[in-house]
Formats: sequence, C-alpha cells, structure tokens
Amino acid sequence: MAAINFSITAQEGRARRGKLSTPHGVIDTPAFMPVGTAATVKTLDGADLENLGAQVVLANTYHLLLRPGADLVERHGGLHGFMGWDGPIVTDSGGFQVFSLGWGLVHGVGKVATMFPGSRGGTARSGKRLMRVGERGVRFRSHLDGSEYELTPESTTGLQQQLGADVMMAFDECTSPLHNKEYTADAMERTHRWAERCLAAWTERKRQALFGIVQGGAYRDLREASARFIDGRPFPGVAIGGSLGKTKRDMRNVLEWTTPLLAPEKPRHLLGIGEIPDIFLAVRHGVDSFDCVAPTRQARNGTVYLSPRNGGTVRNKFRLNVSAAKFADDPRPLDPGCECFTCQNHSRAYLRHLFSAHEVLGPRLATIHNLHFVLGLMGSIRTAISRKRLAALAEAYGVA
Amino acid sequence: MAAINFSITAQEGRARRGKLSTPHGVIDTPAFMPVGTAATVKTLDGADLENLGAQVVLANTYHLLLRPGADLVERHGGLHGFMGWDGPIVTDSGGFQVFSLGWGLVHGVGKVATMFPGSRGGTARSGKRLMRVGERGVRFRSHLDGSEYELTPESTTGLQQQLGADVMMAFDECTSPLHNKEYTADAMERTHRWAERCLAAWTERKRQALFGIVQGGAYRDLREASARFIDGRPFPGVAIGGSLGKTKRDMRNVLEWTTPLLAPEKPRHLLGIGEIPDIFLAVRHGVDSFDCVAPTRQARNGTVYLSPRNGGTVRNKFRLNVSAAKFADDPRPLDPGCECFTCQNHSRAYLRHLFSAHEVLGPRLATIHNLHFVLGLMGSIRTAISRKRLAALAEAYGVA
Repeated sequence: MAAINFSITAQEGRARRGKLSTPHGVIDTPAFMPVGTAATVKTLDGADLENLGAQVVLANTYHLLLRPGADLVERHGGLHGFMGWDGPIVTDSGGFQVFSLGWGLVHGVGKVATMFPGSRGGTARSGKRLMRVGERGVRFRSHLDGSEYELTPESTTGLQQQLGADVMMAFDECTSPLHNKEYTADAMERTHRWAERCLAAWTERKRQALFGIVQGGAYRDLREASARFIDGRPFPGVAIGGSLGKTKRDMRNVLEWTTPLLAPEKPRHLLGIGEIPDIFLAVRHGVDSFDCVAPTRQARNGTVYLSPRNGGTVRNKFRLNVSAAKFADDPRPLDPGCECFTCQNHSRAYLRHLFSAHEVLGPRLATIHNLHFVLGLMGSIRTAISRKRLAALAEAYGVA
Repeated sequence: MAAINFSITAQEGRARRGKLSTPHGVIDTPAFMPVGTAATVKTLDGADLENLGAQVVLANTYHLLLRPGADLVERHGGLHGFMGWDGPIVTDSGGFQVFSLGWGLVHGVGKVATMFPGSRGGTARSGKRLMRVGERGVRFRSHLDGSEYELTPESTTGLQQQLGADVMMAFDECTSPLHNKEYTADAMERTHRWAERCLAAWTERKRQALFGIVQGGAYRDLREASARFIDGRPFPGVAIGGSLGKTKRDMRNVLEWTTPLLAPEKPRHLLGIGEIPDIFLAVRHGVDSFDCVAPTRQARNGTVYLSPRNGGTVRNKFRLNVSAAKFADDPRPLDPGCECFTCQNHSRAYLRHLFSAHEVLGPRLATIHNLHFVLGLMGSIRTAISRKRLAALAEAYGVA
C-alpha cells in the first residue's frame, strides 16, 4: 500500500477538489499548508493548529538539520512526536533554502532576499555565496554559525525520512529569475538526475510519500521538459518549484505550460506561493496544495487579512496593518464577521496596543486570525468547486 | 453593598483560607495573582488564563497610563473589556514603578534594578532619578519616551477607576532598604496622608474596592504605626508594601510586626512577593494573596518550576532552566507528573529547542507551566489549611 492516496471528488474546469489521505490523516484539497519552519508554526503549537482546523503543516528540512538536527528529532518520535502534532506533515528538501544562501543572495532576488533571515545581514550585501553546487550535491555554510554542511539527494531524502514526514520533497536546485536560460537548463537537468537519486534513496515507501519537483524557470520548453520528466517518474505526487518568473504573467504561463502535462491522478503542490490572487490562479490551473510563510510572517508584524466584505481588495492585498495608530481606538474585530478566536474575543484596539507594546500575544492572535482566514478561504474554494461556483467566488474577491 | 466581601472558611494558626468575592467573581485565598502588566499576562490572553484556572489578574496602572492610556482602556470597557478577561482584576497604584524610576535606580536595589526594564539602560548607571516626590504627588518622566507625567493620590485613584479594577491600591511611596529611618518615616507619613486623599477620591465604592498600603520599611515602630493607621481607616482590605528589608529575616520580621495588628476580617495582600518559601512564610503569617512577576518572567527565559518530587528544592529555587544544553535530548516533560497543558503535550527536548531557536512558543509554554505550578501550589496550600496540614506541606517543600 502506498503512503498516500489521492482522490478527486469534484472538478470545475481544471480546478479539482479532492482528498489526500496520508498515514496521519486526510487533507482536503485544494489545501493551504501553514509553515512550521523550526517544528513550530511560529507562536502556535499542535493543539492551536488543531483548533484552527489546519490539516497539515510544512516544515523546513534545512532549518531542522541545523537545529536541533534530524537525529534528535528522530529520537523524539519524528516531527510528529517532537512538535506534538498528529496530523499530516510535509517537509521540503532544503533546496530552496540552499538557493537562498546562493543565487538568491547574489541576485538579491526579492522573494528570497526578503524571505530568508540570513539575507538581511552582511552576507546579502557582500554578494558572496554561502553555497556551492556540484553534481554530487550542495556544500553550504550554516547561516547560524558558519559551520559547513553538505546536502545530497541521498542525504536530504534520508533526513526527511528521519523527520518522519508524510510527504517528502525531492532535492532540487532552484534558480532565480535572473539566471539565463543556459544555467536554468543545466540546473533543471541536474534536478532531474537528483530526482532519480532521491527515488533510489527513498526507502520508506509505505509510510512516506515522495514528490518530484518540476523546475525550468520561466522558460516554456524547459518547464514542459521538466513536467514531462518528473511526471514520468514513479513519484506519487508532483510539486512545481523554483522561479515562477518576474511577473504574475510569468506565473500564469508557468502554470499553463506545466499542469496540463501532469497526470491528473497525482496531487500537485505549488511551492512557496500563498497570496490570494495566486491561490485562485493556481487552483484554476489544477493545483491542489500550497505552502507559504506570508500569512504567518505578515501576522507577526501586525498585517492581518481583511475580507472583501470589509474592504479587502487585490490592491490592498486583503490586508490591513493593525499596528497603525488609526486603529488605536477601533473597537471592531480585525475582520468583522470573522469567526476566528481572535475576532470573537479581541478588538483592533487591543491588538494595536499589543503590537505597540511589543507584547508577543499580538503576533500570536494575528497569526491565529490569518491562518483562520486562509484556511477558511481554502474551504470556500473547495465548496465552490463542488458547486461549480469558483468563478463567482473569485469575482467576490475581485480576482476574476 | 460593598464591592468585595471576604469570608474566612478555615484557619490553621494564623494562616487563613477564605473567599474574596468581587463583582467579577470569587477568588479563593490564599491566592496568587498573575501579573498582566500591559493588559496581558505576557504570551497569554484571557481564555488562556481561564484554562489555567487563574481567578484574578493584577495589572500595572503605571504601564497602562503610559500606553495605551486609561481613557482609551475605559472607552473599551475597562480592562475587562479591553483585554478580554471577565474575572477579577486588581490594579496597583503606580507607586512601585515610580519608586523604581527614583530611589530604586539611585540605590541600585536588587529587586527593583532587576525587575524594572528601564533600569537596564543608561538611567540606572547614571544614577539620575527620573522622578521627584512632593506633598502633592510625584512628577516623573516616562521610561518609554521621556515625556512628563504626574501621579497624585487623586489621579491614581481616578485612573484605577477608569481601568475598572475590582480592587484598587492606594497611592504609596515605596522606600528602598538603603533609605535611613528618617526618610522612611517621612515617606510613611506622606503615604498615610496620601491614603486619606485616596479614600476621599474613591467614588466607586459599590463597584471597586480600595486597599490601603502599609509602609515603614524594615523598622518595627514604623511598620507597627503604619499597620495601625491603615487598619484604622475604612479600607476594605490592606496591602503590605514597600521594602521588606535586606534579608529573609527582615521579611519575617515585617510580617510578624504587621499582620497581628490588622483586623482579621479584612483581606491582606503582600505586594510583589512570589518565591515559594516566601509564600509559605507569608501564608503562615496570615497573608491572603500575592502577586509577583517571577513565575512569568522566569518562564520567558526558560526557567521553569520543578516539584520537590522531581528534585525541586529551596536551594535550586524549585526551578530548572530548560534552555540548558543538557535538556536537548530529554524526552521527559518539564516537571514529570505535572498536569499542565505543556507537560501533558511537550518534552523538555522540544522546549529546549524552542528556546534555542528563539521561538516565542517556548516562553508561552513555559509561562503556562509556571502559572499552573504556582496556582496549583496555592490550591495545595488552601487544602492544607482546611486539613490543618500546612506544616506537612511546607515540609514536603523543604521550607518547614
């Protein structure tokens, strides 16, 4: 028996509603996966996630390798036992973080430069890469203490097996939008050779699934070649990774080139994407799951989601920053009508005060709201697919 | 009808078990009051406190005056509405913080120097006071932005009425253990005159109680004079404040001089004390309630309570620091056998990892444990008083 089972229960155009069964439970798709980088979705624990109705968490192999180490996590029951979360867990391969240490810094790529903590320091400015890619794998230095590590397709597969992920990701080389086609093609070919090695190293087939990753940057022929290659290998699921180009148009293109070439019966994950218009776009191209730090990271600086009914628009990114002075005396909840714990119990004025006073309860309450919002949006999307009302839902969000 | 009603339900020697009824519910005494300085017990919200079985929170008028301001809190339903806590709330008068800005800094008094954030900066080293005491009240500068404020008996009583506290504290001048007797006597006399003015300014007698504060440092005749004076005024409760001297022996003396002079039917609060041996000592001298930042502040740096059954002693202050490397691989809960949420769900290894990775979930989970521990200790003390087994309980903690 395979580790996962995926069944599609409704379709509207290319959009699919489904159920992804894992050894630790079912994930209703399209799904959003909160990111628990260091074995905690920051400010929350497993019980909080359960209360939020989260069905899955994505954790970062790179960060866990550095601290506290995969051996230690394994001794404590894998990530499930260690972090006290009994639901499904997905791990990435570390490829994206290694990319951040490398080309992301050299190229100062927006997404990466702002997403990776290490890139705020001197390293980013010096433009010196902390990693070297070779055929065997990647050598890099820890952003924490400079100590040297190596990740290979075999080691990252083994690490993810130790972490006990229900879904693991193959080791890939991410390129940046500033790489030329020649380098992007080289990296893609290397990613394909690494994919074969990950499959060979994948020993926990009964307990843990392994997704292949489609690369190829924003180049049509590369994306198509990569989609065909990864789809043709015995991965139970496929992720779309790497650079989705420089514009929304590029992202749309990558999705249009890629998803039609993927076997419909396999689940499809879009790595690192989570803005609301992007979720709608990708769902309509047949993507089944997402992970993104945006909802939780934004929450920690006071940026909280706002429904269209309360003025959320594509233009304001469906957000307001509750730490702004104008909310100091606002008795309304963050998003009036929202049924999350935070909105049911606390006012904008209180949240603004907490952020103003640097009280960590602020980030926590905002995180609860933002995850509730995104998880609720995914629920609405699933319902809409069943009712063939996805276009109407997108229109309600102004992303038609 | 008075705002509070206090009834003693059991006694063992001078120790009393009782019920303090307030407009927002009953507090079983002896009670520990978690400190919610800025309208949050740091890392927790009202629902968390309810889950912990906390029956009361103490908030700091000084901090709330500076940020977000009492007018704003009042507009949002007082502290109860603003912070989402329906249980009893006690506020202090700001006197202690003003003392911290003044003599606490000049004298570098341990308790204050370590307890007051502002004292870590240049102010403490320069030894320059940020406040001036006069007959009218105290002028001081905010530790946040240097802006000037004045607190008087009338204004602090009005502020606490705006905050909506169930129990307010009279405005007092705290002295340090380094003040001589002459100054301590002057400050005590001033505190007594201020107490009369607080009583005169106290207009919400039906909804809010006002406690007088006994001062007098570690001087027997002053403490006795202050206890007699405060006890003789129409305060529904009495707090023991100010300097309890330089040693445990001094604290014992202050309690021995003071509590026998207080009317037994009034509740007695000991301000700012919360170490376990001190709680036992004070309970045995007839103290009914305590507030202290220690359990929550310690939790935030990873210092968590340990029961005697797991090696907690007076010597190690019933604590271990879970952020230490030796706990990195320890699968046990913080305090094996503890029934708190943290101990039921998480290991020392996970907590150590969270502190090591600077994840705010660490302080939160440690805070939950420490408050559960102290609140549980108070429950054990109450049961022991009813069974006349307080000495045996103290002995189990090695504080006989």
